[in-house]
Formats: sequence, C-alpha cells, structure tokens
Amino acid sequence: MIILGVALLMIAPSLVALELDSRDKTAFLVSTAVTALCGIALLIFNRRARRRLNVREVFLLTTTAWVAVCFFGSLPFVLSHTVGDFTAAVFESVSAVTTTGATVLTGLDELPLDILLWRSMMQWVGGLGIVALGAAVLPFLRIGGMRLFRAESSDFSEKVLPQTRRFLLQLLLVYLAISVACAIGYLVAGMSVFDAINHAMTTVSTGGFSTHDTSIAYFDSFAVEAVAIVFMLVASAPFVLYLPALSRKLPNPFRDGQVRSMLGSYFAVIFILVGGLAYLEKEDLGFAVAEAVFTVVSIGTTTGYVSTDYAAWGTFTLMVVFFLTFVGGCSGSTSGGIKIFRFKIAFIMFRETVQRLLHPNAVFARSMDGRHVTDETVASVAAFALAFACTVGIAAILLAVAGNDLITSFSAAATATANVGPGIGDMIGPTSTFATLNDPSKWIVCAAMLLGRLEIFTALILFTPDFWRS
Amino acid sequence: MIILGVALLMIAPSLVALELDSRDKTAFLVSTAVTALCGIALLIFNRRARRRLNVREVFLLTTTAWVAVCFFGSLPFVLSHTVGDFTAAVFESVSAVTTTGATVLTGLDELPLDILLWRSMMQWVGGLGIVALGAAVLPFLRIGGMRLFRAESSDFSEKVLPQTRRFLLQLLLVYLAISVACAIGYLVAGMSVFDAINHAMTTVSTGGFSTHDTSIAYFDSFAVEAVAIVFMLVASAPFVLYLPALSRKLPNPFRDGQVRSMLGSYFAVIFILVGGLAYLEKEDLGFAVAEAVFTVVSIGTTTGYVSTDYAAWGTFTLMVVFFLTFVGGCSGSTSGGIKIFRFKIAFIMFRETVQRLLHPNAVFARSMDGRHVTDETVASVAAFALAFACTVGIAAILLAVAGNDLITSFSAAATATANVGPGIGDMIGPTSTFATLNDPSKWIVCAAMLLGRLEIFTALILFTPDFWRS
Repeated sequence: MIILGVALLMIAPSLVALELDSRDKTAFLVSTAVTALCGIALLIFNRRARRRLNVREVFLLTTTAWVAVCFFGSLPFVLSHTVGDFTAAVFESVSAVTTTGATVLTGLDELPLDILLWRSMMQWVGGLGIVALGAAVLPFLRIGGMRLFRAESSDFSEKVLPQTRRFLLQLLLVYLAISVACAIGYLVAGMSVFDAINHAMTTVSTGGFSTHDTSIAYFDSFAVEAVAIVFMLVASAPFVLYLPALSRKLPNPFRDGQVRSMLGSYFAVIFILVGGLAYLEKEDLGFAVAEAVFTVVSIGTTTGYVSTDYAAWGTFTLMVVFFLTFVGGCSGSTSGGIKIFRFKIAFIMFRETVQRLLHPNAVFARSMDGRHVTDETVASVAAFALAFACTVGIAAILLAVAGNDLITSFSAAATATANVGPGIGDMIGPTSTFATLNDPSKWIVCAAMLLGRLEIFTALILFTPDFWRS
Repeated sequence: MIILGVALLMIAPSLVALELDSRDKTAFLVSTAVTALCGIALLIFNRRARRRLNVREVFLLTTTAWVAVCFFGSLPFVLSHTVGDFTAAVFESVSAVTTTGATVLTGLDELPLDILLWRSMMQWVGGLGIVALGAAVLPFLRIGGMRLFRAESSDFSEKVLPQTRRFLLQLLLVYLAISVACAIGYLVAGMSVFDAINHAMTTVSTGGFSTHDTSIAYFDSFAVEAVAIVFMLVASAPFVLYLPALSRKLPNPFRDGQVRSMLGSYFAVIFILVGGLAYLEKEDLGFAVAEAVFTVVSIGTTTGYVSTDYAAWGTFTLMVVFFLTFVGGCSGSTSGGIKIFRFKIAFIMFRETVQRLLHPNAVFARSMDGRHVTDETVASVAAFALAFACTVGIAAILLAVAGNDLITSFSAAATATANVGPGIGDMIGPTSTFATLNDPSKWIVCAAMLLGRLEIFTALILFTPDFWRS
C-alpha cells in the first residue's frame, strides 16, 4: 500500500512532465507504471496475509518500507539519467526521503521542473512519514522517547485502530495545512508559484532541498528568509501540538517544555555566533544577526538551507555549525539529530549528579517539564548516545577508508546521521554538493542517513541475532 | 603538606643540578626554598585549623591542591628559562602533573638532565596522585564510578582514617615497586640508567614525557617498545588489583572484568588498524602489527609515547587514533580518558534497550561483571558523557576562536581532556609539539587537561552556585 502510494504521488510530476513535454516524461510514466504494478502485485500476493503485526514485524516493516520508498522514488532519477548514475540517483532519493537534503546535483536552475518537483515531493512525504512514525509507531516500539510525551500529546496508546487512523488523518491535515500556509507565505514574500510550492514542501519536512543551486540565498530576500525561519521552527515542534487547531482552538506551542528548550538553545547559539561574527570577523551587526539566525535555525532544525556561505566566516563558525549539526529539534517533528529532549535528560542527570555530590544522602525526584523521568528513559538516552556516537564514528572511519580527508569524513558522517544536509570542508560545504564523493562514500552516507532517520534502533535491531531468533 | 612534599621532591633534581654544576642549579635551589617556605608558612598559619573536612572542603582541597602542585612545579621551569616564557612553563607543568604528556619543548636531547628529571618526576607524582585520589578520595566524593568496584577492590569505605593511611601506603608501595620493575625492564632492554629511570616514571604514570624529541622511537628497539607496552598496560589496570602482592599472593589482573574489557577493546582496535595498514597502506605485516600494538596501547592508555609517525599512515589511521584518544584505561589506574567502565555501562544500556524493544514486558537486571549497576551509576555515566562532550566541545570552540585550524582545535581539545598528549594535524601531531600554539590556546589546553584529570565534576562543582551556598 505504501508503494502504491508512491505510485500515486508520482502522477503529479508525470503530469508536469507531460504538460511541459519534458524529455523525462517517459521516465516518469514508466516509473509510475512499474511502481504501481509492484504495489498491486504485492497486494495481490499478500491478500490472504494476516493484518495484525507483532512487534518484530513492525520493526521489519518500518525499515523495509523506508528502503522501498527510497528505491522506488529513485526510479525517475535512474530512468531519466538526470541525476548521474544509479548510485547518485539512489543517494538523491535517500537524501530526499530521509529529509536530509544533501544533494549530488548541480545546475538545479536548468533541471526540468518535473525532476525538481519530485525531489521536493519525496522530502515532503519523508517528513510526513516521520511525523506519522513518531506519533503512531515509535511509541508502540518504545523508541525515540515519545512515550515520555504521549500522555500530553494524545490519548492514543489505549485506543484501538480506528482511533489511530483518525489520529493519523488529523496529523496529515495539520501537516497539509502548515504546508499550504508556508507556500502562501513564500508566495507573499515574492517567490514564483513553483518555487513557493517546492520550498514549502522542503521547509515543512525540514529537508532543505531547493530549486536553485544557491539555495535560499538565490532569492536574496529578507522576507523569504523570515518565512523560512518561521516555518522551519514550526516544523521542528511536535506536530501533535497543532492538533487543537482542528477543534478551532488556538495551538500554543510555547507552553511546551521541549519547544521552549529548543528555542532557548537556538537563541544561545545565535548569541554566541553573533558575538563571534561581530567580534572576530568584524561583520556588520545587522547582517551578523540576520545570517546567524538563519544559519542556526537551518542547521539546528536539520533543514540545511543555505542563505550565506557560512564556511567563509572562519574556523569558529565552522566549529559552531559542526556541533549544532548534532542538536536537532523536538521529537514528534520532522527534524532529525539527537533531539532536544535527550539533551534535556542528560542535563537533568548532570544537575542531579552535581546535587548528589553535594548532598550524598538526599533523594532525588527526576522530572522533566513536570513529568516523571523513568529509569528506562535514562537508560535509553545513554544507549542512544552510544549508538549515535558509534554510527557517526564508524561512518567517519569508513569514509576515511574510502579515501576522504579528515574533515569531510567527520562532517559527512555527522550531517548524514543527523539528517541535516550540508557539511563543512571544501567538498561538502554549504556551497558544494556531495557529487564529488566517490561511490563507496555515497553508499556509506546513504546508510548513515537511513540509520539516523530511523532513530538508529529501529533499523539496527534487525541486525541483532535476538531479532531473528524464533 | 602537599606543597612541602613538592619541595622535598625538588631536592632530587636540585642535587642533580649541583652535581652536574648545571646552569639551572640556582633556579632549582630557589624553587626548592620558595616551595618549602610556602609550605611551612601555610602549615604554621593553619596549625590551629580543624583536621576534619566536610565534602565541600574535600572538593575544594582536591582541586586547589592539583593547581598548587602545577604552580609550584613550574617554578624551576620559570626561573631557569629553559621552557620558554611563564605560559610555556605552566603548560609544561600542568601537562606533567595531569600526566598528559603534551610538551612545548623541542631539543630535549640537549636539555640539562635536572630539567628532564623534574619533568618526569612531576608525571610520576601526578600518576601517584591520581591513584590515591581514585582509591581514597573520589569514592568518598562519589565520582569516577569507583564505588562500583570498591567492594571488590578494598573494604576501605567502612573503615577509619588509620586504615585509609595504611591503604594509601600500600598503594604507594605497589606504585613504587612497579616503577622499579619498569626501570629494570628498560635497563635490561638497553636504556641508559638516566633514560630508564625517567621513562619508568613516565610509563607507570601513563604520562608519556620522554627525554628525547623522537620519544620511544629514539631507541629504535623492539625490546624497549615491548617493555613500554607491558608497563603501560600494567599502569592502566586498577592499582588495587596489585595489592595481593604485598601479602605474597600472585595478583591476577586478568580476572578483573574491567581489565579484560580494556584488553579486548585494544585488541579489536589493533586488529582494525593492522587491517588498515596492511590493506590500505600496503605495509609489511610484521611492521604493521608491531607499530599498531604500540600506537594503540600508547594512545588507548593515554600515555602518548610515539614509536612511529602515525600521522604518515593516512587519514584512516588518524581517524582511529582520534577516536581512540577518548577511550582510556580502567578507573583506579593512572590513565585518563572516558574510561572503559563507562563504555561498558553504556553498552549494557544499549543491550538492555535492544532487549526491551523486543521484549517490552520483560524485567531486566542490570549487572556488570557480576555486580549490580545502580540507577545512580547509569545517571552519572550519562552526566559524565555530557560533561566530557561539553568540555571537549567548548575547548575546541575556544581554541578555534584563539585562531587555530579545525583539526588542531578538535584534536588539542580531545587529547588534553583525555590526558593523552600528542594529537593529530600539522601543529600538534606525533612529530610536533604544542610550542607553536599561541598563549591563549595554551591556557585553554591547560584548563582542559586539569578538568579531564579531575574527572571534570571534581573541579566543575566549584563553579556551581549551590557549592558556595552556605
């Protein structure tokens, strides 16, 4: 059904290709047909399969579904030869579906509109997928810490399937509404209709693909940057917070502890960056503030739009951007990275440890935003930290083995696992693309993007012997 | 009393300086006198002070003692002008006392023997200090996870002061015996008496200072490298494991879970590195094994001896060495870094999280090497991970602000916080020194070395408002 959904979505760029009589129209039509046939074939062959899934099957389905969407999504790229060879096509597709936004394409401005639209649509779908996953599947799998917020976010867990469907439909509506609002914002800010639709889809998914090589800097417009900043932040808050809007109540995300911590962290980094830019690089203060806000929000929310060549700002900025790569937004949003709540829990443990040193016999009640932090949550944060560090470390070592320099290896591993997009260094910096990486490197980055998007454990668990033990 | 102890130790290099009629003899005599006078003055002024310390005072004493030893230890360097300016002298002293082993000195082979001896002695004392701290003070302060092993290591905690004194004396004896054994090993392997004594002191403290610019590579001797490898490993195991030797029982460190995990981790890294060297760099297998074993043990145990220019081995090796920088040895040893037991606990949490995903309703008993892992330990590991990452991150950002390039900033921050010594990159790599860093950078590295050596929390707690609240 998911593959059939991909086929349905492909109809949109196919129509555009037909309308424009683009050279890619055959590629799109064939891709749509092949994808639809595969979907239908799977449906027919499995029509007698039982509908109820156990935990292991949900893990398997989640990971394989993500890989399948990446694969079928790459078909138009492969068949149209617009995105280089097979490896490049798969890379672009994985980068889109995981909402990373790393690209191997240059000359975006000259590409057929159908291809550009399909890239943006895949990011939009990837973002929707991760919101649905985060709201409905991951809490069931006890991954991603969403159980911590569930009681507040929804009373989903105790209800049965029809309720889940309604809940997911509500999220879809909210996601759609925010996308439309974002597109209207971009239109008002002066974008063309095509650019506005594309950028709305890649903003709301915190993906960061653009229709121009120079990304958001192309528009050179304060209004466009402002719209982007607002909607990147909107998309990095838990989407369940917007559900009250469906009952005509005004959502107030600022009441949420996670959102407040996210904004606070970004503000602190902006403050440091502005200081650095004004003091070290002697930049104009107004310019420094504008560019710092955009860059911090874009990297922090793991979107990856580029409004200015931050690599030209010097080592200090690169260092800040590198560390910011790991941060991410809130759980239940479309953003990636380690995510704010894990830092909050680590910080609560830090404070508790300091307190315990001073008051060895005191008893501590752990709570975050008024909710009890279970021992299980602390353990899962420690486990995630190790898993994330190992993913980045192993990816970086493999990238070094594949022949990349130190900074590129590190930065590519980090930006891929955190689903950000641009990195630092000459090869994959804000003004470059991932096209210059060799094929093994592209596959390593693909694996890191998928692992990062699936909160590592969802995919990693398939590689444990215990998973396959009957 | 600690300062008076430093003065007593200074007598040794002073005698050497007098014997050799070295140009530094005045510097050493003045330093000894000043240090002794300060110590005596403090003793006299505080003779009526109460002897019992509370928790806060122990924290304050530990950190100030370490800083005081660094300061007084730098006097001979400052007064003799052999180690550059004041900043360089303090850097060398802090690097010695924290057993880091980063140096600002070149031309070691031409330096007066008294200065070389004093450098080595300070590392030896720093190593002894950290063993005593780890065995007697940190468990009391609930830092460093030693409480986890205490029941096995000693029944110290429940006893009173005379017992503690005896315990510390036993550790001193063991430390001394291992140092003598190491020196004899080096003598047999062909070192001169002076080199053997110096290298024994910097091996057992996992400090890594040498009397030659080319470090261990100077001797170009397989036997010397073998002795170094054995005693670096010996010094990275908990010293309490060797206490049975005092009762004429043969110590068996291999029975200890921490030691086994340490050896296992090093072995895994050696395996990877040999593979890389043989496959990527087409090195001779025998050479690859020998150099990989030495480099992994030297960096892993945070000693920092250099037997070969590992920077010439290419990006892959640099990456492995960089990650290895963080590992460290066992708690209760002289080595620094994050330490094996924290990785073990994180890994136990990782395994538990995977198990919990597959068996959501199972109950898990957490144990490490047959001992229950408390919730408090898990929290403190999470807190330490955050504190360590922040220390490295902030030091790296400050080093970038101070004008260093990306790799130098990262590597200097990591190698200082983990108390390793050499880093990667052109400036602070295995064949370079820290002399080329500017003064602000040297102070940043000093702060990171001290924080790392004091398990971060011991020093950091002094900067919390709660500490100073009456």
